[in-house]
Order: sequence, then structure tokens, then C-alpha cells
Amino acid sequence: MMHTAREEEPMDETTVDAIVAAAAAAAKPWAALGSADRAGVLRGIADRLDAHAEELIALAMRETHLSEPRLTAELQRTGFQLRLFAWTVLDGGYLDVRIDTADPDWPMGAPRPDLRRMNIPLGPVLNFAASNFPFAFSVAGGDTAAALAAGCPVIVKASPGHPLLSRAVADLIEQALLECGAPSGTFGLVLGREAGVQVLTHPAITAAAFTGSTAGGRALYDLACRRPVPIPFYGELGSINPVFVTEQAARTRAEEIAAGLLTAVSSSAGQLCTKPGLVAVPADAPVLGALSDLIRTRPVPTGELLNEAIAAGFAAVVRQVRDHADVELLAGGGPDEALLLATTARAVLADRDGLLHEMFGPATLLVTYRNTAELLDLARAVGGQLTATVFGEQADETTRALIAAAVDVAGRVLWNSWPTGLSVTYAQQHGGPYPATTAPSSTSVGTASISRFLRPVVYQSVPEDLLPLELRTGNPLSVPQSVNGAPTR
Amino acid sequence: MMHTAREEEPMDETTVDAIVAAAAAAAKPWAALGSADRAGVLRGIADRLDAHAEELIALAMRETHLSEPRLTAELQRTGFQLRLFAWTVLDGGYLDVRIDTADPDWPMGAPRPDLRRMNIPLGPVLNFAASNFPFAFSVAGGDTAAALAAGCPVIVKASPGHPLLSRAVADLIEQALLECGAPSGTFGLVLGREAGVQVLTHPAITAAAFTGSTAGGRALYDLACRRPVPIPFYGELGSINPVFVTEQAARTRAEEIAAGLLTAVSSSAGQLCTKPGLVAVPADAPVLGALSDLIRTRPVPTGELLNEAIAAGFAAVVRQVRDHADVELLAGGGPDEALLLATTARAVLADRDGLLHEMFGPATLLVTYRNTAELLDLARAVGGQLTATVFGEQADETTRALIAAAVDVAGRVLWNSWPTGLSVTYAQQHGGPYPATTAPSSTSVGTASISRFLRPVVYQSVPEDLLPLELRTGNPLSVPQSVNGAPTR
Repeated sequence: MMHTAREEEPMDETTVDAIVAAAAAAAKPWAALGSADRAGVLRGIADRLDAHAEELIALAMRETHLSEPRLTAELQRTGFQLRLFAWTVLDGGYLDVRIDTADPDWPMGAPRPDLRRMNIPLGPVLNFAASNFPFAFSVAGGDTAAALAAGCPVIVKASPGHPLLSRAVADLIEQALLECGAPSGTFGLVLGREAGVQVLTHPAITAAAFTGSTAGGRALYDLACRRPVPIPFYGELGSINPVFVTEQAARTRAEEIAAGLLTAVSSSAGQLCTKPGLVAVPADAPVLGALSDLIRTRPVPTGELLNEAIAAGFAAVVRQVRDHADVELLAGGGPDEALLLATTARAVLADRDGLLHEMFGPATLLVTYRNTAELLDLARAVGGQLTATVFGEQADETTRALIAAAVDVAGRVLWNSWPTGLSVTYAQQHGGPYPATTAPSSTSVGTASISRFLRPVVYQSVPEDLLPLELRTGNPLSVPQSVNGAPTR
Repeated sequence: MMHTAREEEPMDETTVDAIVAAAAAAAKPWAALGSADRAGVLRGIADRLDAHAEELIALAMRETHLSEPRLTAELQRTGFQLRLFAWTVLDGGYLDVRIDTADPDWPMGAPRPDLRRMNIPLGPVLNFAASNFPFAFSVAGGDTAAALAAGCPVIVKASPGHPLLSRAVADLIEQALLECGAPSGTFGLVLGREAGVQVLTHPAITAAAFTGSTAGGRALYDLACRRPVPIPFYGELGSINPVFVTEQAARTRAEEIAAGLLTAVSSSAGQLCTKPGLVAVPADAPVLGALSDLIRTRPVPTGELLNEAIAAGFAAVVRQVRDHADVELLAGGGPDEALLLATTARAVLADRDGLLHEMFGPATLLVTYRNTAELLDLARAVGGQLTATVFGEQADETTRALIAAAVDVAGRVLWNSWPTGLSVTYAQQHGGPYPATTAPSSTSVGTASISRFLRPVVYQSVPEDLLPLELRTGNPLSVPQSVNGAPTR
């Protein structure tokens, strides 16, 4: 039996300890299951999510206030994500197999021994689920899929925003694991802040992933670092996702940009990690006017926020920005209406701490700049971001400098497109410099995220029949191997 | 002019600040230099080290007490390492280029945009030099080569053990950078503990690497984590490098193992990060007798320790272990003689904190076990290690379990060979679970170490002529590209 929380009982320390102990005991046998079995589990979870789509979506609508189309798309993405990780496991490229054959004349000055290196699972992983994606970043979400794919047992700390859905999804994961003969303890679910901290600080846990607020995430990061044995903490703590509109683009495409912006700000009630929270436009361009016109004539419905805690947090940060002496209300702000605030680049540059805040809801700050130099200064001042977007014209030399500035601050740089809507692919990078993430070299979306839960080990002069199959000369599993510095398969 | 310390002046805060500011200013232009130029710099440094070998080795002998053959080999390795990183830069595989072409039918449920991802330099890097490898892990050592190769400016905090050599090598690096047109500030040298802390906590620094003691390294790691903007800290803090000798191997190869052990323990005066500090042998096997005989008839000369601080630290930790109630002196321990202490597996399992210490000098602890179960318990109890070694016979089933246990605790697992002597190769892994390192997913030796100083960025829907050359469809630089999940070139 898998270890999961029972909603009806408070989760005490002993229960949590048992869940961690089960994960620790499962680490070896789960890692030892072959790639076909691990891929089978991932597909089994996806199949079960599909089979129970109707009831899961109904539950999610009840607990999160998100719309049916939104949740339907998210559930499809979640199943796809699990299947993409099944492909990743079977492909084997994530193992980063490197083989150096023995070389008596290696120019280092000493004979090179036979060295064979591959990635292995880190061990039991803790995943703090996010509230805003009850499927894709929650119990069976990206970090769970990546950790299971890597060969690590996973304990999910459920989001308090959707406890019943969390339990329902956990049950489906359990079933899929049981069916494939995975060891008991491969998956566990814990509920409650204290339980999360208890697992995070447990010696058996080897890595943790988190998506949420800067304050909460930093506190957990600090706990992870302060452990007697510190562990990698992959935290996604907050991002403003600046959008930079050049003078040329603002002149020629004001209405198009205004309309796209309002959709991006209001979709999923603005509760997306990649919602544009700052949009820089030229002071004298018609974008501002077009936006005002649009929102006056067609107020943007946004829907209810995820839960009371998020609504209260949103209200507080909006009040802080709105009350700033240099900020004016441009449009919106009524009940269920997207909110547009406005200020100047000069004001932002003078008071970054006062004006640069993630507003986790349907709001954005329009920032007017007077010239390209000010725009570039602003781009360089925004801090670490998940995304940065340039709306521009290809022939305009400003765009090259803006893209360079965007690369400096962000993990994903977009051209004439909106950062909401995150494709799950081989190349995707969802991460960025702090505070966007605590680990800028890693991603939480895309097949590369499996690397979070791996560490390399090299075998020196070990005979073939004592080596893992992936490292053998005949390459019986047909994994990608790099031999003496040259990729091969 | 590059910014380096002047030995004759105390390095005040203003000077250190200027060095960091110069590194920050150099970050963009240095990263923008092409791969050929960066490779040229690395080769230029290697060529200069070769050209000045005689004077550098003389200086190193004076400051470190290491022998001429040892330093000659180390200098050759250091030059080779720089040239191998030049190859790595030119090869381009480290960029991990991934291209997903636009796909309207991407099964996630939404059209996939064009996504192109590559690694970019993190920014200015701080490298705390080690004392025991005055060339290979110091000013022009592995972390400096990896960071420069990655496109990051480097500031080295010199080891107090060899300040004059540090300056001399820094001057050669300066010359090589100048000759290749690298920006001023690409390299800097700072001296003194306070200066190291000042640089580590400076907002412009984006990563730090360290090799040294557990206490010192952990203090610096804590500082790196506690920054307002935390940074990756790649610390190598200490390793006991256990060696497990099976009953069969102990029976058939006692003399050979005893002789190899003494060489491994005493080479470089035992001051190698990979010196075997614990050797597990069966209680009833002749290895112990063979060792005692060997050392009695032919005491093992070890040479002077690196400096007074290291000698004092070694004496203190040896005293602690030697005075333990369950430890006896087996042999050696006279001036310049390798020291062999002995205890039992049972004692170690009962008091890990009292008996498992890195002894940074020519000493090792022989641990006798009574049966295979005890040996495996010991292997699992030793904690995170850079290396773990198995001496065994291929047909013996114990070896399979032992290798598995070794993989659990270490970054490098050796079979019938000694862990001292670390080849610099494509597959090498020099790292391991804490406290061996603070970042078990990374390596400090081998071409993979370049990843420490990179972060990925993805370009979404960016037109070809605004993309870096590495990400273009025509692949004008012929770097390895993975297109839609399939590696190609």
C-alpha cells in the first residue's frame, strides 16, 4: 500500500515519519526498476487521469474556482507531460552517459583508466504543490513526473487550496504504481505546513521543489540550506514577467498589443506565474490610449480568485502599489475586472522596492518610458524573471539591445508573443535568476527538468559484467552514449 | 590592465570592490567573445605555464614543500586541463542546444511555438583556490579554466599557502588575456580571508567554487545561501574515501593491496582529497599482518606537510582519532612516516562522529570487519564521499552488493585501483553527496565541470537573424544541436 494522508485524521509527526521512511525504503527498488517499468508507471498515471477526467475536473472546479475549459486543457497538458517523461525515460539521453576508454597515452601525462559515467537518482524528493495549477503543478504535476522519471520516490506536500482533488489524484497514482509492481512508499502525500517542514528537514530527503510566494519559498529554501546535510532546493518564488514594447511596435500595433495584453493579464484570473505584471510602453505612444479605450468599452472579466488567502494577498499587494505616490489608476479595478495601473520608468528606477511586486491576480503596471536609454535601463533593473518579452520590429536596432537585456534577466525570452501559455517540450526552460528561481541552472517545465533529481557517478576500471547495462560497451539498452568525447548511439 | 592583488599593499575593501566592479564590467564583453577567442585564451594560459615551468616549479617547491616530480606532473596536468577546456569550448556540446520547431499539432493540446534553448554564462565567478594543488586547483586550475571556458569572468581568492606563486600565475593569465583582446577585469586575484568574504557576498558575484575543509567550506556555503540573492556554491568539503577489501581479495592479494595502500596514503604527504582514509579489511585476513610487516621493514617516507596550519590541523585530528578508546596504533607515526591506525567496524558503527574524520595527511584508519553483513553496514554508514573503492574478485557475489553501496555514497567508484591520481577526461566525475560536496550534481574535474557556471535560456518565436548563431537553423557554427528531441549535428 502507498502511504498517503487521510483527510479525516490530523497528520501527526509519526504518520509523516512513516511516509518518509517508506519513501526511503522504496528508493533502491524503485531506482532498480527498468526504464520500461518506470515509463509504464508514468503512462499508467496519465491514463488514469484521462479516465477520471470528468470527476477530477468537477472536483477541481469546486475547490479552485477555475473554469472548466481551463481545467480541461490543464488536465490534458498534465497527461501529456507524464507521457513525455515516459518517452524521456525510454530515450535515456537524460542519463548523460559518458565513456572514456583506457588510454595509455592520454596527454594529461598519465595513462587514462577506463571511466564510465551516468546519472543516477538522487533519492527521495519532496514536492511542494502549487495552488494555481491543480493538475499541472500539483500532485501529478511536472516535478512529480520528473522525479518519478528520474527514479526517485516522491512525497508531495499538498496545496491547501485543493485537498480533496489532491487526495483523488494521489489515489490514482497509487493505483498506477501498484499495477506496475512499484514498491510501496514510492509515492506519498502529506498535508499541512508543519508536515511539509518536517519532511523538508528529514535526513532521508535529498531534494525539494517548490512553486509559490517569494516569502514562503525563501523560508523553505533557508531551511533546506541550514540542514546538517543541505539539499538542493528548486524554488520558483515569483516573477513580474516584464514586457517591453518598442516605440516602433507601439506606433504600428497599439490595438493588437492592447488586446493581447488584456487577455494575458486576465486569463486564469491573472494567477499565472508568467502573467505580465509590468508593461513598458513609450510615453507618447497610443498604446495607453488604446488600452484605456478597450477596457472602458469592454471591461475584462476575470473570474473569482483561487481562494481567500490568495484574494487577500492580491488585495494587499495591489493596495501597496496603487497607493504609491507615483502610481495612477488607469482602468478597471471593479469587482472581477482586470486592473491597470500606470507609472513612469523614472519612478520605477527611483523606487524599485516600492513598485516592483508580483501581483498574483488580474493586474498589471503600465510603465511609460521617454526614450530608448530609459527603456534599456528599466529592462536591466527588473531583477530575475521567469520570462521577459519584447514587442518590436525586426529591422529596429533597439530590439537587439532589448533582447540582450531580456536574456540577462530571464529564463525565457519571447518575441511578439505573450508569456502566458507554457509549452511542455524538449527545449522549454522555465526558470531564471533569483527570485524567479533559487536554482537558475534548472527548469521546472520540459524534459530537461529531470536533471533536478539526478547526480552523476563514474565507474573506474569496473569490469563489464559489474557495470550497469547503460555503461556497457555493447550498449545493450541503446541509450545515447558519448564515447571519448564524441556523441554516438 | 587586469586587476590583481599587490602583495606589498594590504588589500583594502576599496581595492576588492574595484576588482569585483571590473569583473562585472567584463562579463558582457567576455561572454560576447567568440568560442575561438575564448579557446585561444585558455591555450595562451597553458602555453605560458609551460614556458615558465622552471621558475613556477621552483617557486611552488619553496612555498609548498611538494616534490619537483609531483609539481612537474601537476603543472603538465594543469596545462592539459586548460587545453581540454579549449576543446570543450570549440566543440560546443556544453551549450546543450535544443531546438523545438513550431508544431501546430503538438499533442499537449496547444500549438507548440518555436523554442530554442542554449546555455549562457552565469556571470562573475569567485574561485577559492586550494592549498594542496598549487597549480591544478589553484589560480589557473580547474574551476578557473571551467569558468573562463563558460564565458564568466573569474576572481580567484588565493590560497594563503602559496601567495607568490599565485601572483606569478595570475600575471601569466593577465598576459594571455591581454594578448587575446579580452576585456580588462576578466580575471582578478584577491588575497586574505576578509577579501574572500567580501567578494562572496558582493551582489555582482553569481557563483562560487571552493575546495578545502568542511568547517571553512560550510561557513562560506552558509554565507552564499544567506545572501539577499543566494548563489550556487560548489564546495568540496572533505572526504574519507573508504576502501573496501573483500575477504577473497584480502586472502589472495594481501601484499599487493598493502603495498598499494601505503603508496596511496603517503603520496603527496597524504594531502590529497582522494587519499584513502579508511580501509576495511576482514578481521582474520593477512592484510593487517602484511601491512605491519611492510611498514616495519620499510618505513614509508612522506615528506613535509604543505604548511604549518595544515600540519597543526593534521596533528589535532590524528590525536583525536588515535586517542579514541577503540583505536590502536598499528604502525608508523614517527617523523615523516605514514601512520596506520586500526579499529573495528563495530566501533565505527557505534561512534561514527568519533571515528570518521578526514585526516589531511599521511594517515589512514584500518577497520576490521567480521563478516560481509558488517562490511556492507560499514559501507552504508560512511556518509558522502568523493570516492569509494572496492578490492574484490569478479566472481564473488559480495562485490556486486559492495559496488552498489559504493555508488550510494560516492561520486567515483573504483575497482581494484587506488583513488589517488585523478584523470582529467570527458567522463570524469569529481564530486559526491555532502559533505564530499555541497552540490552532488556537479563535478570539479573533467569537461562536465563547465556546467557549474552556466544557465539555460530559451528564445520563443524569435526571428533567425535576432538569434545567437548557435541556435540558427543552418547551424553555422556546427555545434551539436538536439532538434525536436533528437540529437544531430
